[in-house]
Amino acid sequence: MRVQFNTRILGCSAALPTSLRHTTVQLLRHDSSHFLLDCAEGTQMQLRRLKLPLMKIDRIFISHLHGDHYLGLPGLLFTYHLLGRDKDIHIYSPPGLDKIIEIQNEISRLRPSFEVIYHEINKGGEVLYSDSSLSVESIEMEHRIPTYGFLFRESEAERNIRKDSISRYNIPVSQMPGIKKGDDLKMPGGQIIPNEKITTPPSKPRSYAFCSDTGYTESYLEQIAGTDLLYHEATFMADKAEIAKEKTHCTTIEAATIAKKAGVKKLMIGHYSARYKELGSFLKEAESVFPNTILAREGELVEIGSEE
Amino acid sequence: MRVQFNTRILGCSAALPTSLRHTTVQLLRHDSSHFLLDCAEGTQMQLRRLKLPLMKIDRIFISHLHGDHYLGLPGLLFTYHLLGRDKDIHIYSPPGLDKIIEIQNEISRLRPSFEVIYHEINKGGEVLYSDSSLSVESIEMEHRIPTYGFLFRESEAERNIRKDSISRYNIPVSQMPGIKKGDDLKMPGGQIIPNEKITTPPSKPRSYAFCSDTGYTESYLEQIAGTDLLYHEATFMADKAEIAKEKTHCTTIEAATIAKKAGVKKLMIGHYSARYKELGSFLKEAESVFPNTILAREGELVEIGSEE
Repeated sequence: MRVQFNTRILGCSAALPTSLRHTTVQLLRHDSSHFLLDCAEGTQMQLRRLKLPLMKIDRIFISHLHGDHYLGLPGLLFTYHLLGRDKDIHIYSPPGLDKIIEIQNEISRLRPSFEVIYHEINKGGEVLYSDSSLSVESIEMEHRIPTYGFLFRESEAERNIRKDSISRYNIPVSQMPGIKKGDDLKMPGGQIIPNEKITTPPSKPRSYAFCSDTGYTESYLEQIAGTDLLYHEATFMADKAEIAKEKTHCTTIEAATIAKKAGVKKLMIGHYSARYKELGSFLKEAESVFPNTILAREGELVEIGSEE
Repeated sequence: MRVQFNTRILGCSAALPTSLRHTTVQLLRHDSSHFLLDCAEGTQMQLRRLKLPLMKIDRIFISHLHGDHYLGLPGLLFTYHLLGRDKDIHIYSPPGLDKIIEIQNEISRLRPSFEVIYHEINKGGEVLYSDSSLSVESIEMEHRIPTYGFLFRESEAERNIRKDSISRYNIPVSQMPGIKKGDDLKMPGGQIIPNEKITTPPSKPRSYAFCSDTGYTESYLEQIAGTDLLYHEATFMADKAEIAKEKTHCTTIEAATIAKKAGVKKLMIGHYSARYKELGSFLKEAESVFPNTILAREGELVEIGSEE
């Protein structure tokens, strides 16, 4: 059984929320870690409504400081305080977010019950966070203010020792770490059992790229190449290409072109302009360029790497 | 037919929103004017969900700068900008709100399409706004940071000229304004018709007091005396009186005592702590002191002065 790796869509509307759609926020889960990607107004209510583990979120990644991507953060932090949180929380964003939050705390005379650790993002391709099983890299977007996407990549896993080999060769615990890394088994009599005979290859590391908001650019194609799942903004349909360009957003066709050129396995589009009530045509347009496309839909859970 | 005077409850939870209840916000309507009282996170979505006239709001009254009372404001203003609003918007609040909003605009490089006019509230009993039919006064609350309630009072109306008198005495248009103010009718032959014979008394002006958040205090009893509808916070039930005091909030019994001592016509309680799932007992406790009590319930419209 592989560890859980999925993203829950809590909001996928562009700048204006509608009565049915919140603006951008996703809850990414990898194993027991929970990451928030952007934090639109209403995030804490969405987390509650969907009975998601609000308190388990320790790292929040904010793509940029347009209101529709971060205005739920002050309320979420206030709620953490009211619930008596004492665990640190790490927030990754372009510069300025600390000032926005701190002036609010100052004026409301709030001293949070926990530490907020701000990490400023100043360039793409930077490793923002890593642990033994996952790393997170910034991706430089092209937008009206400094904006970054996020690339979540599982670490190279170890080889799996076959259960039948363990009993057959009576593999000592002391040799197991080496064997998982690819070493051969050394028997007490000096005999060597080749690694391939006693192990199976590790699962392929999975990856998720979150790209919102951006105008069309090929500058990050290489960085996201081969990603299992690419979330890419597609604010407009193709007939609004001029408006998209002017507002530094992408159309369905542009998002799908990125997916195709980067050779990703699957594309999920979102960040739909509020002018669109019906999303079926979004999907059709994107599929015409990149067939393995899905729509981000509020409330849904999307598995990462399920194609393998 | 009297002009519309009512308040729509868009949120009535205390500091923490729950999956069913937003934090404090009400949309007050008087005739064709729409006022927002506080502006909790999610206000713009609530306005949309309930199909309320988002764009008609020209004045927003913020009681105090704790997050649960104003965190929906930045998103609402951002939405106004995106919708191309050009009408000014007036915001009344204790000092500091302009700094909170302006740093956000600066960092997101936003120059709103409309003017925001900030009005600082620095004391109670001050007329914050008035027009020909309504005035709004600040009420000083007792809370951990500067906090004000709001008293909405209709102006004294004019007397109504009886339709049957108009034809009977052939009342000239030129005399009508005077007669509405109480003058007698002067007939062409010099005869005087007493005002009471040709008019009916004006409707009694209606009033609404919005009091959130506050510890128990009798300091504003006189100011709100006789109010048609008093909205008063009742964060806790009576057995939590100690916690209420410590957090400068009121219990059901305290809110009802205020209503009784001020001789208001009707009490509406709200600002329920998230710990309470069921509100029936809130009502019972308050009714034991002040029988004409109702519960604020999300989505409901409450008429002001309907008792007359």
